[in-house]
Amino acid sequence: MKAAFPMTTDTLPAQFAAQQFASDNYSGVCPEAWAAMAEANSGHAAAYGEDVWTAKAADAFRQLFGTPCDVFFAFNGTAANSLALASLCQSYHSVICSASAHVETDECGAPEFFSNGSKLLVAQTADGKLTPDAIRALATGRSDIHFPKPRAVTITQPTETGQVYSLDEIRAISAVCRDLGLRLHMDGARFANACASLGCSPAEMTWKSGVDVLCFGGTKNGMAVGEAILFFDRALAEDFDYRCKQAGQLASKMRFLSAPWVRMLENGAWLRNAAHANAGAQRLVAGLAGVPGVAPLFPVQANAVFLTAPAAVLEGLRARGWRFYTFIGGGARFMFAWDTQPERVDQLVADIRDVAHAAAA
Amino acid sequence: MKAAFPMTTDTLPAQFAAQQFASDNYSGVCPEAWAAMAEANSGHAAAYGEDVWTAKAADAFRQLFGTPCDVFFAFNGTAANSLALASLCQSYHSVICSASAHVETDECGAPEFFSNGSKLLVAQTADGKLTPDAIRALATGRSDIHFPKPRAVTITQPTETGQVYSLDEIRAISAVCRDLGLRLHMDGARFANACASLGCSPAEMTWKSGVDVLCFGGTKNGMAVGEAILFFDRALAEDFDYRCKQAGQLASKMRFLSAPWVRMLENGAWLRNAAHANAGAQRLVAGLAGVPGVAPLFPVQANAVFLTAPAAVLEGLRARGWRFYTFIGGGARFMFAWDTQPERVDQLVADIRDVAHAAAA
Amino acid sequence: MKAAFPMTTDTLPAQFAAQQFASDNYSGVCPEAWAAMAEANSGHAAAYGEDVWTAKAADAFRQLFGTPCDVFFAFNGTAANSLALASLCQSYHSVICSASAHVETDECGAPEFFSNGSKLLVAQTADGKLTPDAIRALATGRSDIHFPKPRAVTITQPTETGQVYSLDEIRAISAVCRDLGLRLHMDGARFANACASLGCSPAEMTWKSGVDVLCFGGTKNGMAVGEAILFFDRALAEDFDYRCKQAGQLASKMRFLSAPWVRMLENGAWLRNAAHANAGAQRLVAGLAGVPGVAPLFPVQANAVFLTAPAAVLEGLRARGWRFYTFIGGGARFMFAWDTQPERVDQLVADIRDVAHAAAA
Amino acid sequence: MKAAFPMTTDTLPAQFAAQQFASDNYSGVCPEAWAAMAEANSGHAAAYGEDVWTAKAADAFRQLFGTPCDVFFAFNGTAANSLALASLCQSYHSVICSASAHVETDECGAPEFFSNGSKLLVAQTADGKLTPDAIRALATGRSDIHFPKPRAVTITQPTETGQVYSLDEIRAISAVCRDLGLRLHMDGARFANACASLGCSPAEMTWKSGVDVLCFGGTKNGMAVGEAILFFDRALAEDFDYRCKQAGQLASKMRFLSAPWVRMLENGAWLRNAAHANAGAQRLVAGLAGVPGVAPLFPVQANAVFLTAPAAVLEGLRARGWRFYTFIGGGARFMFAWDTQPERVDQLVADIRDVAHAAAA
Repeated sequence: MKAAFPMTTDTLPAQFAAQQFASDNYSGVCPEAWAAMAEANSGHAAAYGEDVWTAKAADAFRQLFGTPCDVFFAFNGTAANSLALASLCQSYHSVICSASAHVETDECGAPEFFSNGSKLLVAQTADGKLTPDAIRALATGRSDIHFPKPRAVTITQPTETGQVYSLDEIRAISAVCRDLGLRLHMDGARFANACASLGCSPAEMTWKSGVDVLCFGGTKNGMAVGEAILFFDRALAEDFDYRCKQAGQLASKMRFLSAPWVRMLENGAWLRNAAHANAGAQRLVAGLAGVPGVAPLFPVQANAVFLTAPAAVLEGLRARGWRFYTFIGGGARFMFAWDTQPERVDQLVADIRDVAHAAAA
Repeated sequence: MKAAFPMTTDTLPAQFAAQQFASDNYSGVCPEAWAAMAEANSGHAAAYGEDVWTAKAADAFRQLFGTPCDVFFAFNGTAANSLALASLCQSYHSVICSASAHVETDECGAPEFFSNGSKLLVAQTADGKLTPDAIRALATGRSDIHFPKPRAVTITQPTETGQVYSLDEIRAISAVCRDLGLRLHMDGARFANACASLGCSPAEMTWKSGVDVLCFGGTKNGMAVGEAILFFDRALAEDFDYRCKQAGQLASKMRFLSAPWVRMLENGAWLRNAAHANAGAQRLVAGLAGVPGVAPLFPVQANAVFLTAPAAVLEGLRARGWRFYTFIGGGARFMFAWDTQPERVDQLVADIRDVAHAAAA
Repeated sequence: MKAAFPMTTDTLPAQFAAQQFASDNYSGVCPEAWAAMAEANSGHAAAYGEDVWTAKAADAFRQLFGTPCDVFFAFNGTAANSLALASLCQSYHSVICSASAHVETDECGAPEFFSNGSKLLVAQTADGKLTPDAIRALATGRSDIHFPKPRAVTITQPTETGQVYSLDEIRAISAVCRDLGLRLHMDGARFANACASLGCSPAEMTWKSGVDVLCFGGTKNGMAVGEAILFFDRALAEDFDYRCKQAGQLASKMRFLSAPWVRMLENGAWLRNAAHANAGAQRLVAGLAGVPGVAPLFPVQANAVFLTAPAAVLEGLRARGWRFYTFIGGGARFMFAWDTQPERVDQLVADIRDVAHAAAA
Repeated sequence: MKAAFPMTTDTLPAQFAAQQFASDNYSGVCPEAWAAMAEANSGHAAAYGEDVWTAKAADAFRQLFGTPCDVFFAFNGTAANSLALASLCQSYHSVICSASAHVETDECGAPEFFSNGSKLLVAQTADGKLTPDAIRALATGRSDIHFPKPRAVTITQPTETGQVYSLDEIRAISAVCRDLGLRLHMDGARFANACASLGCSPAEMTWKSGVDVLCFGGTKNGMAVGEAILFFDRALAEDFDYRCKQAGQLASKMRFLSAPWVRMLENGAWLRNAAHANAGAQRLVAGLAGVPGVAPLFPVQANAVFLTAPAAVLEGLRARGWRFYTFIGGGARFMFAWDTQPERVDQLVADIRDVAHAAAA
């Protein structure tokens, strides 16, 4: 997963030239986000978020979610999620998450760093989804001062395994949170994909279902850089602007982070991009029906497909130039983005079929 | 300095519409940086800095500085400086800086946060410049374990007061650092302006003069977002990539931070932009010769002019729509950027002359 | 102030053998504290503060202060003060203190470490005492997110310069704190000495005068180890037990920290010890009346005397074997403890007189 | 495991009056430690470890271990272990430990707090012992910057399950550590019990077997308060005195922490106490031979016995007034201390036999 860093052009892996489906953040900036940045790049504007674009972007979120939430902007998901969790916890508190949660597996200890030590309590779950029972078990297993006191729960929507919590599932989780005095955070690095999948409103999926804080991902949705943090319980946002500043997450030329949100929220690009990506995942799944030995590891509900396949199949795909990561249970992950080309999906399908039949022969 | 945040469009200050010279980060993205982002926005690319643009940018820095330094990219100066200092210190160490250093006055405690407690030891200096004597006094004043042990010195080049350390001054500072076992960090938020001012090479101003780590500012130089961190003593860069990742400073679509560097370093825009901004400052100073009661507070050597002027003059300027911050000693700060319009400087000169003569009458 | 550490018996400074008055924590354990530990050292007792001695000690504090405060025990003042301040602040907040405050000058950055970065805002004051005006100036000087937001004020009672805030002074400080939304912390490393000096009740000096949190020093008062932290605003104590545990400040055999408090609070030794130490300081001052060139630098109101004296006098004293630290303005500090021997004070007086007259001759 | 805290005498659990075997830190101070404190409590002594007792204690450790290690003293094991690990790691590094390691299960996130975020990588092991294979698997499972880089391994000797790593096992672990560039830390909260169990020298169990840092527990060995930290690789101890100070672990009246070590190391009490405690555990095991349904969960090699027993047996024991914790797999833990009374062990044996036979009837 890692080459020498920082690289020189000599060490740069050649295979990165033509990859597709390896990750949705391998995609570039979508036209709407680009146009908004271009429009924002006009003359001078106040720095540090005191510009008109940032004000408009915050308003656009409040409009979209239908509630007067507090809105902040950070550079990336690592910081957005970690800062949000840090605002819910003191260092001696803990956060309950799934064992496959990105905050646990791929943030290099960022939640612990930003919070100065809050521990992640990890639930082993079959498919990467957290459940009310798992939360209750972790939250009530210890109640002595020798173990960090649970104070927050974080769920990833959609999950790292490409599944979507239903509204009922979210409500059941928030109910157990309220019952136990825990705050509920949603890591929405691909929040738009979940909305597109369920067809519900952002409000329904969040504050109407008991979510306290949402990190809404912009990068994977088609932006160059930037995530939004929404506090539906505004009391939790007290001094959060200071927290962002101190943690190196306040952009001076903020308009280039906020303008894309204005445009994309207002004209619906956020949802169209997500629906397009989800459709790519469904196209792959549909195309693979009946292929021997190849099947999705998890229900495909967003823009990720984890395939279980014989080793020979994966090798064959790599030999044909396809790049993908293999994770849990040997699953090969294919991610679809706002710019996924259907014909390229079809080509992947064809190649998988080829190598699978060859392997089965 | 601060409006309600996050703002709504209702609370947005009207005066931000037409300001100039309030800050160099009120400027937008320069054409070269924009073109580079546009070019980079093509197809898919590996994330997290493993793309070809990032490799090229690192090479471009090594080429420009003529040395095989380690290069990293962060989102902003708050993080770049804080991470660099944290890599030089443990929590019980301290960093010597000027009382007007940005890390002390305008980072909301970021250096202390990233380092988990390293204290800034502040030298009171007449003009914002740190001196070998001041460093020695602070570094040797205490040597007991009840006070944080000095381990690093940071200088801002150019200073927050718009002055430039000469090569001799830097060498004298690095000599005392070596003598005392201290590491030397340079906050180069406007590093290009210093190079343009002194007419020396980046190498001469840094590693050839004893600087261990440089934060090279891209945002004020004309980019949308991004700073570079260069370790000339590469041993200090060990695992710095992990440090950036954990601290929320690893961009997934890194190419949009790195591509502008490639283009601007290769075609000289970094230096042209800085020279242009510096020229704006000189134009203002030249225009104010002989104006009663109005004079620069500090030698004008980069892109900042601090003017001392009667209160009536400052009020008069504000009445005419000019926006600027007042800092130390009541000085009014005017900043010039890559896009400063000479005719606009002339208009400022004319207005200052008008109100000054009226005030003196 | 520091020898090689950890030392070997070979490097141990010989001069430590016979010193007096160098520091009040050079004294040992007073008879009452010792007896309490001996009594507590009987059989088995629950660990981590769940023993009867700890419960009794907390009750004794509530009795002494006449209010149902929350009481915690920490190992030393570094931790007690830092944990208390951390409970009042987030990392992006700041704490206002005097430039001579122990938390600023002698804790090796502990407040910043425990709070993960809270900055100390330092008021330069003539005599080490914080004033309402100084607090207001620091608290209102900046109100932008680029500077840590003031959230707490800490005063040392008595001060590091051996003075005592009057009740009126404390009330004036707490009034400005309430006005500005700041919490008031009292570093009472020598709290008993202040009570003995003013002759007022502990309640009057703290919660009745607006103090939110007090660190009550036991070590300098005659114990082997241990300080108490009292939250008069009990809401601030939420989960403070977890904070202590995580920070390595929960003693397993807590009874040895708490038993001395039970005995000393109940039988008045806490106040007798302090009064005895204060009397030592007064004895020295009285004895030096009329000695040429020798005078107290600050009003002597507790157990410290800072003497200004010609260098020759200080050298002469050192030549006669006296050990003391020299601090601010060249003042020589003499500290008096619960076990100060009056005849030894008289000997010091005699020696000072001798060398002063010799120097003046 | 926790009552309301801080308690009042009203809420104090009555059952704590007469407990035995619940924990080895329920015991008091042993005669040798007490005598040393009494002897140290004579006159004045330099503070903060610059006294003769502390120098002698450090020398005594160097003598006992036969090597010029650097020695430091902390108040408790939480801090000693966390500070030692923090000295081996940066915040973005990780520490490999057993799932039952005390640092993972009972320190309220202290390692993460002191290190500002270092993650613990937990090996699930059958019996609480870490193995070379488990270390290798965890250390090599990930090598990308999105996951904290392994830098240290910690083993508890004896383990939390009452077992002792053999010298061969330690050497095998240190070999894999060296191979992978990891540092080896030993949590020796009950180090003396391991020495007594194996009959080997402290040197053989530590630096001669590849241990870099040892935390040697004093509290459970019979002291009131205090642990020692020994750096066999002295380069790792650089500025560790500052680290202790900043973290609130530098005792002002250090002699009361260090004097007991001098006496106990020199006259062998440290080993006698441990052997006595171990013998208590063996006495219990021997006495239970043949009791139906009752057996040790783990090999009994130090001063802990984990018994598996029918629920009715445990209830019966509680009904007879015995206090103990139940942990992993429902095991009832009995701990033996320096002051364990053999006749009391016999009484426990008799009671277990009684209730077990009653339950089996």
